[in-house]
Parts: sequence; C-alpha cells; structure tokens
Amino acid sequence: MDQQSFRRFGHAMVDWVADYMTAVEAMPVSARVEPGEILRALPADPPAGPEPMERIFDDFRKTILPGMTHWQHPGWFAYFPANTSPPSILAEILTAGLGAQCMSWATSPAATELEEAVLGWLGKMLGLAGGFTGVIQDTASTSTLVALLTARERATGFASGRDGMRRPLVVYASEEAHSSVEKAARIAGYGRENLRLVPTDEAYAMIPAALERAVEEDGKRGLEPCCVVGTVGTTSSTAVDPLDAIGDICRARGMWLHVDAAYAGTAALLPEMRWILRGAEKADSLVVNPHKWMLTGFDCSAYFVRDSAALVRTFDVSPEYLRTAADDRVRNYRDWGIALGRRFRALKLWFVIRSYGVEGLRAVVREHLRLAGLFRAWVEEDRRFELMAPSPFGLVVFRLNDGRGEEALDALNRKLLALINATGKVFLTHTTLRGRYAIRLSIGQATTAERHVRLAWEIISKAAADLLPHPG
Amino acid sequence: MDQQSFRRFGHAMVDWVADYMTAVEAMPVSARVEPGEILRALPADPPAGPEPMERIFDDFRKTILPGMTHWQHPGWFAYFPANTSPPSILAEILTAGLGAQCMSWATSPAATELEEAVLGWLGKMLGLAGGFTGVIQDTASTSTLVALLTARERATGFASGRDGMRRPLVVYASEEAHSSVEKAARIAGYGRENLRLVPTDEAYAMIPAALERAVEEDGKRGLEPCCVVGTVGTTSSTAVDPLDAIGDICRARGMWLHVDAAYAGTAALLPEMRWILRGAEKADSLVVNPHKWMLTGFDCSAYFVRDSAALVRTFDVSPEYLRTAADDRVRNYRDWGIALGRRFRALKLWFVIRSYGVEGLRAVVREHLRLAGLFRAWVEEDRRFELMAPSPFGLVVFRLNDGRGEEALDALNRKLLALINATGKVFLTHTTLRGRYAIRLSIGQATTAERHVRLAWEIISKAAADLLPHPG
Repeated sequence: MDQQSFRRFGHAMVDWVADYMTAVEAMPVSARVEPGEILRALPADPPAGPEPMERIFDDFRKTILPGMTHWQHPGWFAYFPANTSPPSILAEILTAGLGAQCMSWATSPAATELEEAVLGWLGKMLGLAGGFTGVIQDTASTSTLVALLTARERATGFASGRDGMRRPLVVYASEEAHSSVEKAARIAGYGRENLRLVPTDEAYAMIPAALERAVEEDGKRGLEPCCVVGTVGTTSSTAVDPLDAIGDICRARGMWLHVDAAYAGTAALLPEMRWILRGAEKADSLVVNPHKWMLTGFDCSAYFVRDSAALVRTFDVSPEYLRTAADDRVRNYRDWGIALGRRFRALKLWFVIRSYGVEGLRAVVREHLRLAGLFRAWVEEDRRFELMAPSPFGLVVFRLNDGRGEEALDALNRKLLALINATGKVFLTHTTLRGRYAIRLSIGQATTAERHVRLAWEIISKAAADLLPHPG
Repeated sequence: MDQQSFRRFGHAMVDWVADYMTAVEAMPVSARVEPGEILRALPADPPAGPEPMERIFDDFRKTILPGMTHWQHPGWFAYFPANTSPPSILAEILTAGLGAQCMSWATSPAATELEEAVLGWLGKMLGLAGGFTGVIQDTASTSTLVALLTARERATGFASGRDGMRRPLVVYASEEAHSSVEKAARIAGYGRENLRLVPTDEAYAMIPAALERAVEEDGKRGLEPCCVVGTVGTTSSTAVDPLDAIGDICRARGMWLHVDAAYAGTAALLPEMRWILRGAEKADSLVVNPHKWMLTGFDCSAYFVRDSAALVRTFDVSPEYLRTAADDRVRNYRDWGIALGRRFRALKLWFVIRSYGVEGLRAVVREHLRLAGLFRAWVEEDRRFELMAPSPFGLVVFRLNDGRGEEALDALNRKLLALINATGKVFLTHTTLRGRYAIRLSIGQATTAERHVRLAWEIISKAAADLLPHPG
C-alpha cells in the first residue's frame, strides 16, 4: 500500500471512528450473534494474493462489527468500564506509526523517560506518598502477578529457584478479592492451597483481625506468611479493604502488601475520595488502571512499587545482545515486568492527562459518581428493589426482592437481567454476594450521561413490572 | 474534544504517520540524547486545566520525536526487526476506536472468532501440522512462560500448588536460547538452578546427544526432566535446533517440547524454508511473532499449542462475575494466558494477511533473505572480515579480523560498531558467540531495500578502513 492510499484509508478510518463515537448508541450494546456465527462467515484459508483495502474495510463493517460487543456504548453498564477518549485514540495512531519497541532505554529513550515522567504525574494526581516508582504493565492481572513474584523473591532472598519454592509461602486476600489473585498465586507457585481468602465484614471489606488470626495460624503450622493483597474497590461490590490496619499487620510481620485499586484507584483523583487510599503509604506495591476509568484506552495499567530494586532483581536478565552503554545510568523497563517487548503506552496517558487536565479528569469521575448516586437513590426509593452493598464508586449492586425465598429470588433476578439485556439498549452483568445473585450497574464510560442512566432505570423498572405484575 | 476536532487531528496524525514513513530515513536511526535529557524537558507536574491538542501534538514532534530510536527506519539493522506496515497501522486505528476488551467470547464475539480464524490461517501458512490451536499473546517472553507453566502443571497433574513446586522440575534449552527462557524458568518457579543450558555444535545448534545425557543425569540425581525449549533462529546467530531429534527425546521421556521460533518462524512462509520447522509436529507448543518479521505491528505473538485443554486448565479462573451463558460453547481467551484483559489484536493480523496475501508476504521475506545473502557474500569476499556463524535468515553475524589476539579483536570490533552507529544512518547491535564479540546486521524492516544494505556495507567498509588504515 503506497503512502497516498495509506493517507486516504487512514482518513476514512479516522472518520469511521469519529462517526462510531455517536453511531454506536443506535447499535445493540452486546453482540446479537450465536457462537460460531462469525467464524463461519470467514474463509477457512488465507488469500494467496493481495485484496484491496476497500474490501477489507467493508468486511470489517459488515462481518466484524455486528459481532462486536460495544464497550464504548453509552449504555455500557457491564463489568467495569474500559473507557477511552479522543486524545487516547489519537496517541494510538502515533504509537502504531512509530512502531517502536520500548524494551530498553536505548531502544526508545523518549518512551522510557516519558513513562517515568507521566507515572510521576499520576502518583501525584492520586495523592500517593513519595517513595513509589511507577511502571506501565498491560493489565492488573499482570501487575498483581508481578507483585506476588517480587514478594516471593524478597521472602526467599531472591533464591526461590534454589530452595524458595520448596518453602510453603502463603498469600492472603479477602474473599472478595479479584480472581487474578488466585491466578497469580497459582502461576507464581504459591498454589491455590496456599492462598487464604480472609473473611469480610458487612460492607464486604477484609476484617483485619481475621487476617491476623490466619497469619498466626499459618505461622504455627510452619508455613511462611508472605504477601497480602488488599483491594480498593472489589469487583463484586467495590468494597474498600482497610489498608491502614492491614498495612500495620504486614509491617509487623514483614509481609509484602500489594494494593489492587485497578478500578477504584482513579477515584483518588478527587480530594474528597482520597480516603480510599488511606494506609497505602504502608504498601509495597499498588496498581491502578488508567485504562478502566481514566479515559485511556486499554492497555495501560499503572504499577507503583516502593522497592524498585527488588522488582528489577526479580525480573532482570542481561544477555550480551541486550546490553547497552547506557545501562548503568538508565531504567530498562524490560526488567520491570514479565514481557521483554513493550509498546509505547505512556504516550496515550500523556495525551489524556494533558488534553483533559487534572480538573477535567476530576470532572468526569465526579459526574460518574453523581450518576451512580442518582441511580442508587432510585433503587432505594423503589420498594421492589434493594441495594446489596454500600459500593461508594460508580457501581450500584441491587436486586429485586419481593420477599420470596432466596433461591427463587436468584432465579427472579436472573430473569430480570436477561430481560434488561434483551433490549440491547443497555448491558449490565451480575455477580454473587454471600452466595446471592446480584445485578451490577457500573457507570464509567466516557459518553454515558444522565439520560442513559435514566433510560437504564426505565428499562429495569419496566422489566421488573413485567416480572412482578401485581405489586404487593 | 468534540467529534469535529477529533476528525481534524486524526487526519493530521494520519498525515504525520504517512510523512514519517519516508521522512524517517533522514533522521538518525538511534536517538541522539543523553540519559535524562527528555525527562528534564518535561514538566514535573501535570497541568491542572486542559491543554490544546495543537500544543500536545507540537510537543510530541519537538520533544518526544528527537528522543525516539526509529525502529521503522530503513537503516534499522539492530536486534531483530519489529516491522509494521500501513494495513497494520490502519487496523490499530479501528482497534483503538472500538476500545473493546476481548477477555471473553461474550465481551467481543467477533474478536474471539476472528482470532481463531486468523491463527488457523497462520498455522496453514507456516505449514504447521494439524492439531495445533493458536492464540495471540503479547510477546514471545510471555508465550514461553505460558509454555513452561503449562508444562509444569501437566507434569504435576495440575497440582503444582499442592506438592508440585516442592518437586525439582528441570527445563532444558540450548546455551544459545533466548534470555526469556531463563526469565520464564525463574518466574514459573523452576529456578535458574534447574535450567540446563545444553551445549551447541559448530553451527550453534543444540546437540541432541548432549540433551539426552543431561536428561539422564538429572534423572539419576532424582530430578524430574520436564520441558525442553528448542529454538528456531537463536538471537545471537539464528541457529536452528534439530527439532526432529529433540522431539524424539521429549516423546520418549514425556517431556513438553516448546519451540521458540519467534523471529525465524516467519521464514516458514516460504516452501523452500519449511525445513526449519521439521520436527515441529512433535512439539507441544510453538511461538512465532508476526510482530517481528510479518509486517504486523507490535504486539502480536502467535502461540500454538497442541493440548489446549491443558493450557486452559493451567490458567482458567471462573469467578461468578465473569461467567456467561455461552461459556460451555465458546473459547474464552482470558483462560489461554496470563492477563485477563486483552486488546483486539487479531484485527491487524487479518488486515496484513489480506492486504498482502500469502504471496505478498512471501515476497517480502524472500527479498530480505536475498539482501542478507548479498551482504553475506560481501563479507565473505572482503579479507578484512569474517562471518561468525552460518545464520540462514535475515541476520548476518560478522567481525573484523586482522589476526590480532582475541581480546584485542573484541576491542577492535567494539570500536567498529561505535563508528558505524555514530553515522546515524544505520543502527546495528552486537552479541557474543563462544565469548567473542560479534556484530549483528539484521535485515527485516518493511522499507529496507538494497540501497540501504549497500549503504550499510559502505559505512562498515569505511569504518574498517579507518580502523585498519594499512591493509596487510
């Protein structure tokens, strides 16, 4: 493809994205396809000769698009947001065009130093105490794995290969912690059996006394308490673990404290929400995903670590072919995580922070919190519904409750969610809390406005009315 | 930023990328900056209010660009290529615009099924035997880690957490294998101590008899031989391990065979190069990076696995909030690797394969091989130089040798490389082979043509003449 064609199709695709930003509202949020439907529409063999870009672009619109679930839809209330924004998309064009591989300082000095600068900004924006150094990972799953690996190495004197993994190291997290903690514990060789899921209180937050008891019992059994993952904003109900008390326990026992604030950490942009990170100054590491709620397109997971030397010691490999003259004076981010190759991800975060400014980003988050507050109030005022958890962020967890038995309520709410999502105008997902089925409405996409939240409530109310035709 | 501004800046950035594709040739390949120079040019604090995109884009060009090392420069002969192409960049615009999170089938059905289809294509294009299933990972480091983790779990009956990592599992790779094997062995808890670096022959390829001896000795010492990593195209010299013989040893011992063909696998697009994957049908897993040599922008690492059930069993976690109605009928790629969140990476590979066609991609690879052959011949014909390894792909490994002692030769060639790279017109890197310093010239960027390789040779010849003013 020559330069002129690239230019022409590049403009056409930018225009398509610009149109998509508003056109998406008229599309069903979640794809209306059956398993295998797209696959069957695709040829089983690659083309021998070149195909014109017109046709490829056309197939994208006709075959791929109808099979997409639209994360940037204003009616997206599922899971957590993974929002993006025009400045983030613009930066991705440049990143793709540069095609730089940012593994070492020497392979892309500006990318390395921009990452250092922008994560310094982000730390300040979130009110993190000094002493943390930031690096961009792809996801919070990876960030949590990186934390568990560094904790493992620190606990074994960086000799897990010699004898460490023969020692039974234990990880602690609340029973509401994200599944990535279990996945990381398995990958890092702690094993599922050495992951303790600590009980939570009525707000689904970890009970520090229960953590302390678990740690003591393990110690008595000859196991080695190694790492605690505290969550700020759990996935099911955005509960906030008491980092302050957990941090004290970790410090007293020499355990690594990792804070998973992947979704909710963004709320710490707001001075009035800073309380959520109280105690984070006692943490060894912390993850916040700008790709969730900070208008920065996936992937961009900010991992902050106190002892970056321990991190580097866990991951560094320096074969001759990667050595450069600058090595002793620079950061080589390849040694700050698992993958050697790295995309230039700092650029989009830089574009977003500058384009919105800190106040602009705060305004977006504040509006999402206001909308969640509105929705929460509607649920509370409607006697057919009940809130299932406090959830102080953009998420509201609720269910229909007409007093029938718990099993029947689960079935009722499963039906309710199916009716809601069948409209195609909004998309919500579910969870369980203490074993009970609950519906999650998560507000955080860039274009979600009050009218979309009102529409969601109308759809939910109507579906409830259809299921409960005779209010008691 | 409103839709109209996005459109305007999107066009401007596409135009910038289009111009960059040719303008880059006039820029120094590797950045001419000192450590800290870019960082000092960036403000220490984020802006409180929004900044205009004009200014941000301007800063990108004035501050960031001069600090970039240009991987897409036609004079890029460093490391391995990480080439990209117009269709790949176009697809990235759409991927960024959709902002989809492709963790599960339900969260993006078309992305999941396109990934399945396109990796099916790729397997056929590379002549892989049936029975392999593909999934896109971010990098070969991650793919190799995924292989070592799956091997670990299979060897321990998927119970490494209970007792597996208390068992001493051993990994084997050649002494020329990539550093990511050591990194993966450490992360996965095998430990550096249980990684055996098997000796290589005069072509730097693993000696199967030496592998067999090492396996036997470990068995006698009560250790458990678990996994072998065979390399097709080592980093230092693109040596090809004899997969056929290695595969027989693995099958006889029940060991997992992982093939790292990250760079060189792309050459298997050519029927005349298919021999490099002879024996791959005995492998359990194999990685090829389209983001290295197949015109697909980073990141896109294709991981092929035979027993996908073992892979999924290693990584799956199914908390309630991730369950969907389709789960028993679909692939949820979140369970095929480490990270939960996933970008829509299949789109760019689809765009590239269709836009070039299989023959078009073959033509690109063939031309790179031809250019490497040319350069290799020039080195051979010039009595001042010697080839350091056979290197049957786009890489040529050589050094100046005027007969002085080995230590002195190392110093001489270090000087030579510094002189070459100081021109800013080409960028080469180095390695060591059997402890001796060697210069690597790797041909594989999309726009590298014969005149660039000729220029490289002129620069190298002139630098050699400067260092050896009086030919003997």
